[in-house]
Amino acid sequence: MNIFVFIFSLLISLAAFLLAGWLYSWVKKQESNNQKINNIAELIRSGANTFLRKEYIILAKFALILAIIIFIFLPEPIWKGNILDNITITFAYIFGTIFSAFAGKIGMFVATIANKKTAEAAVKGIRESFLSGFRGGAVMGMSVVGASLLGVTLVFYITGNATMILGFSFGASSLALFAKAGGGIFTKTADISADLVGKVELGIAEDDPRNPAVIADNVGDNVGDVAGMGADLFDSHVASLAAALVMGSAIDIASGSHNTTTVFIYASLGLLASIIGIMFAKMGKSNNPTRALNLSTYITTGIFTVLTALATWIFSLEWRIYGAAITGLLVGVIIGITTDYFTNDDKAPVRNVAKASKSGPALTIISGTSYGFLSVLPAMIGIAVSAFVAYKITAPLGTGYALFGISMAAVGMLSIVGMIISNDAYGPIVDNARGLAEMGGLGEDVIRITDELDSAGNTVKAVTKGFAIGAAGLTVISLLGAFISEVNTAAIKLDLPLITGFDIMDPAVFFGLLIGAAVPAVFSAMLMLGVTKNAERMVKEIHRQFDEIPGLVEGKEGVLPESDKCIEIATTGALKELIPAGLFTIIITVVVGIFGGVYAIGGFLTGNIVSGLLLALFMSNSGGLWDNGKKYIEAGNFGGKGSDAHKAAVVGDTVGDPYKDTAGPSINTQITVVSLIASLLSVIFLTMSIF
Amino acid sequence: MNIFVFIFSLLISLAAFLLAGWLYSWVKKQESNNQKINNIAELIRSGANTFLRKEYIILAKFALILAIIIFIFLPEPIWKGNILDNITITFAYIFGTIFSAFAGKIGMFVATIANKKTAEAAVKGIRESFLSGFRGGAVMGMSVVGASLLGVTLVFYITGNATMILGFSFGASSLALFAKAGGGIFTKTADISADLVGKVELGIAEDDPRNPAVIADNVGDNVGDVAGMGADLFDSHVASLAAALVMGSAIDIASGSHNTTTVFIYASLGLLASIIGIMFAKMGKSNNPTRALNLSTYITTGIFTVLTALATWIFSLEWRIYGAAITGLLVGVIIGITTDYFTNDDKAPVRNVAKASKSGPALTIISGTSYGFLSVLPAMIGIAVSAFVAYKITAPLGTGYALFGISMAAVGMLSIVGMIISNDAYGPIVDNARGLAEMGGLGEDVIRITDELDSAGNTVKAVTKGFAIGAAGLTVISLLGAFISEVNTAAIKLDLPLITGFDIMDPAVFFGLLIGAAVPAVFSAMLMLGVTKNAERMVKEIHRQFDEIPGLVEGKEGVLPESDKCIEIATTGALKELIPAGLFTIIITVVVGIFGGVYAIGGFLTGNIVSGLLLALFMSNSGGLWDNGKKYIEAGNFGGKGSDAHKAAVVGDTVGDPYKDTAGPSINTQITVVSLIASLLSVIFLTMSIF
Repeated sequence: MNIFVFIFSLLISLAAFLLAGWLYSWVKKQESNNQKINNIAELIRSGANTFLRKEYIILAKFALILAIIIFIFLPEPIWKGNILDNITITFAYIFGTIFSAFAGKIGMFVATIANKKTAEAAVKGIRESFLSGFRGGAVMGMSVVGASLLGVTLVFYITGNATMILGFSFGASSLALFAKAGGGIFTKTADISADLVGKVELGIAEDDPRNPAVIADNVGDNVGDVAGMGADLFDSHVASLAAALVMGSAIDIASGSHNTTTVFIYASLGLLASIIGIMFAKMGKSNNPTRALNLSTYITTGIFTVLTALATWIFSLEWRIYGAAITGLLVGVIIGITTDYFTNDDKAPVRNVAKASKSGPALTIISGTSYGFLSVLPAMIGIAVSAFVAYKITAPLGTGYALFGISMAAVGMLSIVGMIISNDAYGPIVDNARGLAEMGGLGEDVIRITDELDSAGNTVKAVTKGFAIGAAGLTVISLLGAFISEVNTAAIKLDLPLITGFDIMDPAVFFGLLIGAAVPAVFSAMLMLGVTKNAERMVKEIHRQFDEIPGLVEGKEGVLPESDKCIEIATTGALKELIPAGLFTIIITVVVGIFGGVYAIGGFLTGNIVSGLLLALFMSNSGGLWDNGKKYIEAGNFGGKGSDAHKAAVVGDTVGDPYKDTAGPSINTQITVVSLIASLLSVIFLTMSIF
Repeated sequence: MNIFVFIFSLLISLAAFLLAGWLYSWVKKQESNNQKINNIAELIRSGANTFLRKEYIILAKFALILAIIIFIFLPEPIWKGNILDNITITFAYIFGTIFSAFAGKIGMFVATIANKKTAEAAVKGIRESFLSGFRGGAVMGMSVVGASLLGVTLVFYITGNATMILGFSFGASSLALFAKAGGGIFTKTADISADLVGKVELGIAEDDPRNPAVIADNVGDNVGDVAGMGADLFDSHVASLAAALVMGSAIDIASGSHNTTTVFIYASLGLLASIIGIMFAKMGKSNNPTRALNLSTYITTGIFTVLTALATWIFSLEWRIYGAAITGLLVGVIIGITTDYFTNDDKAPVRNVAKASKSGPALTIISGTSYGFLSVLPAMIGIAVSAFVAYKITAPLGTGYALFGISMAAVGMLSIVGMIISNDAYGPIVDNARGLAEMGGLGEDVIRITDELDSAGNTVKAVTKGFAIGAAGLTVISLLGAFISEVNTAAIKLDLPLITGFDIMDPAVFFGLLIGAAVPAVFSAMLMLGVTKNAERMVKEIHRQFDEIPGLVEGKEGVLPESDKCIEIATTGALKELIPAGLFTIIITVVVGIFGGVYAIGGFLTGNIVSGLLLALFMSNSGGLWDNGKKYIEAGNFGGKGSDAHKAAVVGDTVGDPYKDTAGPSINTQITVVSLIASLLSVIFLTMSIF
């Protein structure tokens, strides 16, 4: 690796941290004088910290066990290979878990401060409030991407070995898998329970302070949507770099080219573009928060396109690789826009579902499911086309370039992830602010402002989720390439025949394909059943409190619900339910690999990718659609709040909650984890399989 | 083809028809003296006939257009190939559509007589009633499989060319696609509307004669579940034979073996086993209808196993092929049993969903969806293992045998389809009988008997559906083999390079894979949206009737609802909605083939199979689970009828209706159609593709 590029990457990572620090101090400086709000915010903060601490303790044990296994078996069993490699990869792995935990923690730390600042800023006006929310989110965006680039740069520079990046990436992924799943179960347990008893049974408002689950719901926004999402996107970003570096360095070694340098230049410029985009983001004269968020995304995209073109020209990089990266980025934007069509309440799908709700919840579900299924097509075509185009553009450069091109499309798509995360973390912050404004009694006008900010958060969230799933799709396709690259490196050493591809008509491949396709379905099911079980427990507790605490239902002054009990249930339940789903994923991959060998694993990964993308898109989009359908009715359409249509739409929203916030986004991480395990265990699958 | 085998196949087909004729006359001889029931049955019969007539008129036009296109382009464009081939395949196609229509028509004809006989027989006792229902269904089973074997035998004997069987099979499939979709939309429009207004809004009983949609609902049972299902299984059976014959004859031509003979022997013996099983089916002393139905399935399975072993021994056929066929059959039974676990109300999933319903409809949906996703795993593993085992068992026989082995596993799994259809058609007949008993006022005892028969029908239906999906899975995997075989036959003629397989790392294959995976989702969505739109119209009409017809709500003597209006809405809507979904499927296949060529189509088929199996299993099983969850609560658990849990369970059941009876089973046909189109257009995709 070129020393200048190394220094450049380091500098950009540090710039990101500096910006994060500055934004943090800016947010912290904003006013927060309302004591009632501060008290509630403190409850949320301490609940979130408690959960995260308990979660990290469990995950630390889990990571330790995995680290030992990695040390013994990877990259080769300790009795066969070079023990120094085993030590290095184990450290890379641990390093990855720590960075991932750090990124989640930082984001949550700021989010639990920014929420109250944003609520109070709304008293001054929408622009001030927007800026607090956005900058709070941007701290997260900058920390995550800064940490990712820094970690990958260091590991690669120190070890000079791309396989070690896979170890780092696996550390990030394995933690993200559980963080996303655990946070997702927590947040939706609380959200669903609060809605079921509050909105559906008692007909009280969203964030009514009498409801014992409301604080837990707000805690959930932070542990699920902020910390979990941060870990998830950290993982995707690292994985995209890992795939590109593995394949790029294989070419570099074979032909003396400098593809890994290109990867770092592009990734650094992506972060730089996000830094610039964030610094200049604010609400224009239109006072339209959605537009402000989208505009900063487009500006970042534009800056990245120009900067990388300049770099490609100045340093005489390959224009074909530039083409692949830009293809990825453009397709990401297109996927975002089509996703928006299916979840925006200005468009037909949301309105039709809202209309169908007039005939009861069954039709809400059937029509929402249908639109969710339809929404899969444009994104799948987008991913298919971008992979195809990137492959065809870069194939003429020589052997290995075509798959490297796909990985560069993923790098391109994820280049602006700093901006994406900022937009995404903005969502739960303003959602929290809305709750605080309601519970703190800041009045109707302020609630209206926070509502508007919240709604923008929802719209943008759908778009960024489409983006994230698209990027995950391209990343895992290129991880498939990385897997072959790893297998062949091992095969050459062991003098075994090389793998050129996976033939669908090979029965082992087909066998893996079918089983791999079932995995995301089973994984989602386990998470959602976790939510169901947990929500049943919490609903029981809420009922108990309303029955047993005198004056609570009536809202008597000074009577407070026992929020901590609900937080406790959500925490214990989430931590209990997250392990089986994660273990299932890891174990079935190992079993298929040991039984069927590398060909079965090739099929398994493919099936996993295909059905994972399908289900992730379906669940994220239908969930977003139901959420906005409910909001559309609440805005006064088809009978408005309290009507039968509204009740039906609330059912849809509740079903959509675990779809879009628990299962859907966790699938992203699940497919990445499986792909990384396959690459890491390639030697074992190659030499020890039964068939 | 051996003349003795030809005659044997013909004789067995004729025996099936003879048995069907005898069963029909037996059913017709049963008593039906209740004038009220006869009148209602007449309404159902005429409604069903009206729908089928209108549907067939549209389908005839559609088939004619397709026939012209086939004549011009298949197997090769008319200006390039031998015109005689084009004429032959066109006739084979038309022949296929006619046979398919005939099979659906016969089944429905008998079902609309058997329903009233079964209702009246219930006055005598459960055993008499069971026999009427079962024998009515068996007429369908025998006609469908008799027609399938007869058609395939004739086409193959006359043309001596397996490609022509693909034409016949495509005729059956293209008709089944629309018949299943149209019938499915019809039946669920009526069912959902009847439930939404009757059960949910007014709280009246399932088949209350005041409800204007009740007759339409009963008509739907016949056009969707009987005629549509018959067309579907006819199509699967023909397709499995077509795939086996295409690959078997390729081997026969290359090596002078007699594999096509084996196919006919096994298929004929499967039908013979079903004939014997049906003749001896009756209810034992236990008076347990579920056991009676399952027992006859197991007996048929046993007879087939013994008969084919004898034939293999006497005629010195390959034992390895026998092994493949029996593997398929056994796995079919295993898939049936695991499906039963997820949909049987004795087991945990149904009970947990019923329990979750206590917390409202949202948890009913989330938990049911989760178990539906879980249920996918055993079936996918079953299909994967049987394909793998069949491949490995037969591969040592020589080139081409491995894929032929998979097709023989499909033939084995579908060998007892005559029995399966009989069991399946029994369901809607007793469902209708239950409605007639209620509307005809036959009293509580009789309704209880028909309820018991109906519940057995539901349990068995879930099992047979698992069976049908498993078989479709194996069939389409072998159609993938048939596709390669067709492409290579053409490639040899045109002196183009042969295809040995589809490499996932080939960008065209991956491109096709992703798009193919989206197709079943979009197809299902279009059908379900059709149901939603249609149901909205019908709900409006029911409301109008209750508002405008004096005395209807009160149930005043002599006041009848205008049932025909509901039938009219369901008919018009279904016919309008079925075309786009079918056309979408056909067109996207052609577009991908023209753009991406044979490799993209290989990926496309694979993606389609994988996601099609996933979604079909998910939707069929979750639908069955919700249905039985509701019944479990109605049996007095968790508050019983009228409780909140019951209301929530009704929402689940309503969502499950289009899942299990419209979209789920139609996907089967959809993947078969796509596979057949690919094989038929192989020459065009090989020579005319853009990339």
